[in-house]
Amino acid sequence: MVSSLRLPTLTSFFSPSFTRRSTVSPRRRFHLRPPLAAGFSAQSAASSPPETENQVDSKKSSRVQDRGNTDRVITPRSQDFNAWYLDVIANAELADYGPVRGTMVIRPYGYAIWEAIQDYLNVKFKETGHSNMYFPQFIPYSFIEKEASHVEGFSPELALVTVGGGKELEEKLVVRPTSETIVNHMFTQWIHSYRDLPLMINQWANVTRWEMRTKPFVRTLEFLWQEGHTAHATPEEAEKEALQMIDVYTKFAYEQAAIPVIAGRKSKVETFAGANKTYTIEAMMGDRKALQAGTSHNLGQNFSRAFGTQESGQRQHVWQTSWAVSTRFVGGIIMTHGDDTGLMLPPRIAPIQVVIVPIWKKIDEKTGVLDAATSVAETLKTAGLKVKLDDTDQRTPGWKFNFWEMKGVPLRIEIGPRDVSSGSVVISRRDIPGKQGKVFGISMEPSVLEAYVKDRLDEIQSSLLQRAISFRDSNIVDVSSYEELKEAISLGKWARGPWSASDADELRVKEETGATIRCFPFEQPQGTKTCLMTGSPAEEVAIFAKSY
Amino acid sequence: MVSSLRLPTLTSFFSPSFTRRSTVSPRRRFHLRPPLAAGFSAQSAASSPPETENQVDSKKSSRVQDRGNTDRVITPRSQDFNAWYLDVIANAELADYGPVRGTMVIRPYGYAIWEAIQDYLNVKFKETGHSNMYFPQFIPYSFIEKEASHVEGFSPELALVTVGGGKELEEKLVVRPTSETIVNHMFTQWIHSYRDLPLMINQWANVTRWEMRTKPFVRTLEFLWQEGHTAHATPEEAEKEALQMIDVYTKFAYEQAAIPVIAGRKSKVETFAGANKTYTIEAMMGDRKALQAGTSHNLGQNFSRAFGTQESGQRQHVWQTSWAVSTRFVGGIIMTHGDDTGLMLPPRIAPIQVVIVPIWKKIDEKTGVLDAATSVAETLKTAGLKVKLDDTDQRTPGWKFNFWEMKGVPLRIEIGPRDVSSGSVVISRRDIPGKQGKVFGISMEPSVLEAYVKDRLDEIQSSLLQRAISFRDSNIVDVSSYEELKEAISLGKWARGPWSASDADELRVKEETGATIRCFPFEQPQGTKTCLMTGSPAEEVAIFAKSY
Repeated sequence: MVSSLRLPTLTSFFSPSFTRRSTVSPRRRFHLRPPLAAGFSAQSAASSPPETENQVDSKKSSRVQDRGNTDRVITPRSQDFNAWYLDVIANAELADYGPVRGTMVIRPYGYAIWEAIQDYLNVKFKETGHSNMYFPQFIPYSFIEKEASHVEGFSPELALVTVGGGKELEEKLVVRPTSETIVNHMFTQWIHSYRDLPLMINQWANVTRWEMRTKPFVRTLEFLWQEGHTAHATPEEAEKEALQMIDVYTKFAYEQAAIPVIAGRKSKVETFAGANKTYTIEAMMGDRKALQAGTSHNLGQNFSRAFGTQESGQRQHVWQTSWAVSTRFVGGIIMTHGDDTGLMLPPRIAPIQVVIVPIWKKIDEKTGVLDAATSVAETLKTAGLKVKLDDTDQRTPGWKFNFWEMKGVPLRIEIGPRDVSSGSVVISRRDIPGKQGKVFGISMEPSVLEAYVKDRLDEIQSSLLQRAISFRDSNIVDVSSYEELKEAISLGKWARGPWSASDADELRVKEETGATIRCFPFEQPQGTKTCLMTGSPAEEVAIFAKSY
Repeated sequence: MVSSLRLPTLTSFFSPSFTRRSTVSPRRRFHLRPPLAAGFSAQSAASSPPETENQVDSKKSSRVQDRGNTDRVITPRSQDFNAWYLDVIANAELADYGPVRGTMVIRPYGYAIWEAIQDYLNVKFKETGHSNMYFPQFIPYSFIEKEASHVEGFSPELALVTVGGGKELEEKLVVRPTSETIVNHMFTQWIHSYRDLPLMINQWANVTRWEMRTKPFVRTLEFLWQEGHTAHATPEEAEKEALQMIDVYTKFAYEQAAIPVIAGRKSKVETFAGANKTYTIEAMMGDRKALQAGTSHNLGQNFSRAFGTQESGQRQHVWQTSWAVSTRFVGGIIMTHGDDTGLMLPPRIAPIQVVIVPIWKKIDEKTGVLDAATSVAETLKTAGLKVKLDDTDQRTPGWKFNFWEMKGVPLRIEIGPRDVSSGSVVISRRDIPGKQGKVFGISMEPSVLEAYVKDRLDEIQSSLLQRAISFRDSNIVDVSSYEELKEAISLGKWARGPWSASDADELRVKEETGATIRCFPFEQPQGTKTCLMTGSPAEEVAIFAKSY
């Protein structure tokens, strides 16, 4: 039964899922949704009566007795990382497959993570002088052809609108894969003097890339992102902007998502189609593959030359940047912090930071427990925390524990009749399993509780980051020869070594090991360096890894 | 010269604007942007040197002397409402034309109004129990065909993707014109028991409708909106939800946008393609045409039957609603409040609520004035207001006065050397032109100034609403016969009268007068009614008007 609980595998994802869907009975699918009940299996749940209320089902409501469930519906991470990833997305209701191959429906819980990303970045973008606006998503095909390497990079991935209002269009329209071309078309009409510079804008939008190998959040046919576009009077300003924005992303990754990305510069081979330089943040996922989690491009004058974007005084073509972060970041969060139990969310981007589970055995305990739970919930909401009080009668406390752990909620507060009597609660951390993460007797007194909860959330936030840093650092190997690089990669690790070899050598590494240069990190070791491939002097170390 | 300052007319809007654009020189276009300088004309500005700094240009910096400019670049509203509308959009930099016919680029100032709309509604949607999520924009063509009246309503307006990744697609894809079909496809997989109901979601998204007659904000080929979709266990709940959401929109219109919409029910003829009932808010624009500013549909079981969306217990098809507000609302705000001077924004949705214009004649006054202006700006920002300090040296105070009035900023604070000495400022209201709207000697003392400014903003907010109510009410005529209806419509007014006639009669009215039933308002007069067309008993009055 376990396998039927999973989302379709990557293979089946390639076939139209709306055809596939109809083979799964709605009834079974529903019962799969609450997947972690004690002794739960899809079949038995489907044929059993609705669960009884808490007070009747007293056997199950004990904190200890109720945790015996080991019937995992989530594939263990260590067993099959990809299956685990898809299981987590399905069970935590982060996303579902759209009817068109490779498309994704972002469900409320997954979308709330994206909203947390938006809320943070949107403020930072405005603080750094950018305004939001909106460009049309349909781009005349001819625009894409104007910048030579851009068209080469994107033309294989384009979706084309050829019919509008019942008529064949004279010029087919590209559904934007990115907006540099249409942005430059408009910038050309808005920039006429140095006084119009810098022009710094951002848009939150959907983009379409006809990808062949898709994976929820990581690579989908349509995805959501923000794309910043700026124009400057000098190359220095553009460079400063490109670096500033990769820095905004880096801070977001570390401080909010608790992902210790490595920021650096892409190799020429890996640079964005149309850019002079691409800066990137590279994150190590739980399977040690690299995820490119955000990029910032110094476009030089490539697009402004192609579109004639210039200020009239000196007739100088403007210097530009573009930078983006997408819903892929949600995938990065899942794959950085999740464990066999499911999702694990950093408190600062968690849609629910604290879940409160009331526990009662007898009906006459119910009111007191629920009153206390409601009051605790109000206290924490007033303190600005995101709180969920799970007071449904439909599920046992044990089921709820499992469910919210699987959903990655950082803290759980348990309140039972004895807690009500003593005016205290029990608090469990998602990041420390079992008894070790559980503390009894925390006072319900608002100021005490609020301070305690906030401290724990801060601890969890920094603990997740520290754990990810340790994992990252223990999986990066310093190499000084191609042999060592190959060995590191074959062990699934990242290889870091001096590099000054050719593009051809870089492609050879990719072909022979599957690894690419993820970046030349900004943080470079001191001392003289010798290229691991050629033995020639090298100025920088590069990081090689397999990637998503 | 004046005509060349305008955006392309509606006629030229139909031709590909990227072709048209190239005939306008960038240089001229730039100089058109600051269009309201004293004695400004496109030609003279284009050939004149950059404006001198304030302190040199002392003649112009007096508050009185500098207001003599009557060279309007905005067509008077009374002369040509449509030209006025397009002029305001161009001059206030709200939007521009996209390269594809009928598409629109929403510029930062226009987008900020949309963000204000989003910020308010997003909170209300969550308060009323809805979660945000995201559905793919590509919909298999077969989905659209499933609901009979839906396909009839939308098929003429569809944009179709037929090529993806370089290959002809097996099934062409519709770029969503609205999402009922794909939402139901997914709901069918998520709803399996009454416990999954109500399911209440919303998405902020772009939608595409291949409109033939377009107009910025009001009707564009692609536009931004939110679309709510809900599923309920009973028809009563669905009805309650549909009414609740039209009420949310109504409150937004009155309290935030200061637009006294009339809320009501659409006639059968005007009901959304696929709905049982459509509720609407209808706004009277400055030219007395009606704008449908938001709708909420009770979909009954039309889509759940077509897609088999049912809960398994009783095998009941669910009862659904959908509701939407779009960037069209921005057009409604422009056309409700704007005047010959330009935009006039209600304080609660204004991107800039207060503009501060420092004024100095001599260089030794500059520091004191700018210090005071900066301090006032900080005071008001700290108080949570949206403030712009226009301290550029490039323009005269008079030019700035005109510019920010044209941009519709509700309040202007002027600070000159004498104000600095007396510790006071001069405050002008956008909604009361000239001396009458100007008050001297308001203390700079933070608590006094903050209270004064907030009071004035509240006054302006309610004054704009009252003015719009008066305008609306003086332009609605109660009619009791078709003759009276025709006369009212021919005078450009709205006609309100009892109606129980046939769909055919309704279509006849449209054909003969150009007016349609905008709604049967929720607020109905007491007493017995006789249909204005047939003389039969009528239960309700309807409102007839020409519309956008």
